[in-house]
Amino acid sequence: MTYVNLAGEATPLPDPDAEAVVRANDRAHVFHSWSAQGALAPLPVAGGLGASFWDYSGKSYLDFGSQLVNLNLGHQHPDLIASLHRQADRLATIQPAMANDVRSELARLLVEVVGEPFAKVFFTNAGADANEYAVRMARHSTGRNKVLSTYRSYHGGMGTPIGLTGDPRRWANEAAANGVVHFFGPYPYRSPFHSDSPEQETARALEHLESVIVLEGANTIAAIILETIVGTNGILVPPPGYLAGVRELCDKYGIVYIADEVMAGFGRTGEWFAFQGFDVQPDLVTFAKGVNSGYVPLGGVIISAKIAEFFNDKVFYGGLTYSGHPLACALGVTTFEVFRRDHILEHVRDLSERVIAPRLDGWLETHPSIGEVRGRGLFWAIELVKDRDTREPLVPFNPTAAQNAPMAAFAAACKADGVWPFTHYNRTHIAPPLVIAEDELNRGLDVIDEALTITDQAIGA
Amino acid sequence: MTYVNLAGEATPLPDPDAEAVVRANDRAHVFHSWSAQGALAPLPVAGGLGASFWDYSGKSYLDFGSQLVNLNLGHQHPDLIASLHRQADRLATIQPAMANDVRSELARLLVEVVGEPFAKVFFTNAGADANEYAVRMARHSTGRNKVLSTYRSYHGGMGTPIGLTGDPRRWANEAAANGVVHFFGPYPYRSPFHSDSPEQETARALEHLESVIVLEGANTIAAIILETIVGTNGILVPPPGYLAGVRELCDKYGIVYIADEVMAGFGRTGEWFAFQGFDVQPDLVTFAKGVNSGYVPLGGVIISAKIAEFFNDKVFYGGLTYSGHPLACALGVTTFEVFRRDHILEHVRDLSERVIAPRLDGWLETHPSIGEVRGRGLFWAIELVKDRDTREPLVPFNPTAAQNAPMAAFAAACKADGVWPFTHYNRTHIAPPLVIAEDELNRGLDVIDEALTITDQAIGA
Ligand SMILES: Cc1ncc(COP(=O)(O)O)c(C=O)c1O
Ligand SMILES: Cc1ncc(COP(=O)(O)O)c(C=O)c1O
Repeated sequence: MTYVNLAGEATPLPDPDAEAVVRANDRAHVFHSWSAQGALAPLPVAGGLGASFWDYSGKSYLDFGSQLVNLNLGHQHPDLIASLHRQADRLATIQPAMANDVRSELARLLVEVVGEPFAKVFFTNAGADANEYAVRMARHSTGRNKVLSTYRSYHGGMGTPIGLTGDPRRWANEAAANGVVHFFGPYPYRSPFHSDSPEQETARALEHLESVIVLEGANTIAAIILETIVGTNGILVPPPGYLAGVRELCDKYGIVYIADEVMAGFGRTGEWFAFQGFDVQPDLVTFAKGVNSGYVPLGGVIISAKIAEFFNDKVFYGGLTYSGHPLACALGVTTFEVFRRDHILEHVRDLSERVIAPRLDGWLETHPSIGEVRGRGLFWAIELVKDRDTREPLVPFNPTAAQNAPMAAFAAACKADGVWPFTHYNRTHIAPPLVIAEDELNRGLDVIDEALTITDQAIGA
Repeated sequence: MTYVNLAGEATPLPDPDAEAVVRANDRAHVFHSWSAQGALAPLPVAGGLGASFWDYSGKSYLDFGSQLVNLNLGHQHPDLIASLHRQADRLATIQPAMANDVRSELARLLVEVVGEPFAKVFFTNAGADANEYAVRMARHSTGRNKVLSTYRSYHGGMGTPIGLTGDPRRWANEAAANGVVHFFGPYPYRSPFHSDSPEQETARALEHLESVIVLEGANTIAAIILETIVGTNGILVPPPGYLAGVRELCDKYGIVYIADEVMAGFGRTGEWFAFQGFDVQPDLVTFAKGVNSGYVPLGGVIISAKIAEFFNDKVFYGGLTYSGHPLACALGVTTFEVFRRDHILEHVRDLSERVIAPRLDGWLETHPSIGEVRGRGLFWAIELVKDRDTREPLVPFNPTAAQNAPMAAFAAACKADGVWPFTHYNRTHIAPPLVIAEDELNRGLDVIDEALTITDQAIGA
């Protein structure tokens, strides 16, 4: 018995009896992230291909969140799977202290694509540890301790990264926030600075940041870390000139500028790295997810020549067993090949400009519950409000389950109609795999368009 | 052109020209763990099989350190590679919030093998994050902050784990040691308690630990974390009754007992988990490495029913994109199959008792530079001294390169003769893949035996 997936290919239909076993063992034995464990009902997923995955009933979902904005090349990409097979037969793994061909090659490719002044790559297992070690490099090379990050940010679940995070996931982990200071980043739609234009937002946000630097004591500050475009916390695109201004402040005060590109990197915004769309050069760039679509855990830090050189004769006190994992790196090398051969960046920009931007702009006319739409590439947010004038969010920051009801109803409607949305507080994001076809994208947007009638009704419109 | 590896199989000889490229890109672009980058000369590894790996000249090395004591099933194990191929074709990855068959199954197997009172598994990417999240579970479920760990320990490179670490890798990262208190574990050969028998060492070590608990304030202490057998820092086997005594103190004072089994777990000591050889039950067990021989990064925390239940109605504030990675978990499931089918635990115990123990005991007669040999399973240390009476180490704790010269000469001699040793300070460890054959093990031990004449000469014997 076979199942025809969205790509029109016949694949075996998963055994429906198997679902009960998966579910029972999951509920009995799997402890899940960021949740109270009691009330969870995770969907058993049976397979995936391209922009879709399906459950054990054979029901298929367009993946509008790319599994935590991770699968940039989609589910089961044939070239990535072929690369896995190839490298599995060559050499699955070897310790970090050795040299390895695909590790060397991926490091070369990463440095090539970001260009000067970058020189080296430290490989980690994921995004959180990439940020952990980037901060450590900044602290050791500057001899300073404090790190500045923004409210409304996410930098990972571990130690320093959870301390850097500027959303509720930090609150229960304050002990980890050693030396971390939070400031406000720009957010034109809800300006913390009472500005009424993007230009003013930039100017005031930079003035605010400089005040924080001066008042904290510039020479106590090792680094500023920024998601180039804030991801989970709102697809906050920095207004013109902001990142360049941050760079200037970092230069002025001898502070290391860390760009967290874990979610925004690898084509998500239509650039290799999001910062390349803003005419700015960080000192350290952290990445994970899209580097190999997470088929094998991988992350890392791309290091400027200056910071790399600091560690030529000084020990870098950091490391991990799986650093530079060959299987993971081979997939990274293949990711570069696929991006170039299939013109992924162009595809992303094209869909963004020709399909998403006009459709979402149109929805501002038809859906009174939409407050703002914003984004770049395949990285968009639709922000929902109770009232366009007051901009009161449809559900509050960090809502209770009861408060979240209208968003939950919206998400359920999307799922019923075959789209798995990425919702967060009062927003739904559009972040499908970058390989999504135009008709799939339109089909998914049709479903979201329809489901937004629910949020319109929720505000009595 | 082919190369006959140690298993007697013909494999393609790697392209020697390729070596230059690997090396050049490595030196230019790969930033390595725990090192000053300037003077590194990492060996380009071309392939591996079973207990051996080889370089681009075709020279083969018996792997006596298992790539950081990671490859318990050895290089390119055919069943693990087959499992990789199978799962790659099924589903490489899916986000943690979904349910997945191999993730469910591996969780079930892990809980089964440790038995009551364990209930659930939280999957991470590696050993450091396993410890990070175990500590977090202990802190959140007890409402206390401090964590006790021993000097001479290693718990990982990140945030909390590097703070917990009791070796020089912590010194440059003190800021991460929030709430961490170090105490002395038992070490009969160099007793911190001036004891002269294992029994006395146990009694005095427990008295010391209880004093630390009382003086730090028992109800400020969330957890005690212990490597069941200390790995990198010396294969320190706890004397009889010590771990049971720690368990009692934890019960008495409401402290969570975390067993770090990242290195000692998965058959290394001849048990599934090392603690199972000591008649003791921790509350949280952390693992990585041997769970799937690191072919795909994986780690985790096995959680007692009591702590798991605490989080039924309270959110666990921790998580990561790759938690419960299907490709990694499939390899874990296969690891269980291979261990059971091939009687790996029995093989380890047999080699340990019949080959290693008698040979190493014999060396005490023939090599005056050996102070003590100790270990279990395929996890042994040979401790080298300048003088057997004073027990002065051959090279000091955390030696400079100059001080380390005799150990470096020993390691170079092993490598020249085809054994890649695991050396650390004044010790060399015996930790080959668990699948090593008796003749390979004997061949490797012959090489080490011979190389020990160098350390004998270094002390003028
Ligand atoms: C911007 C950003 N940084 C860091 C991380 C942490 O990555 P990981 O979950 O791989 O640790 C994430 C994860 O979503 C992220 O979005
Ligand atoms: C006992 C122990 N705990 C934790 C770790 C850290 O594991 P990882 O390097 O995977 O983070 C190690 C690594 O050697 C270890 O030996």
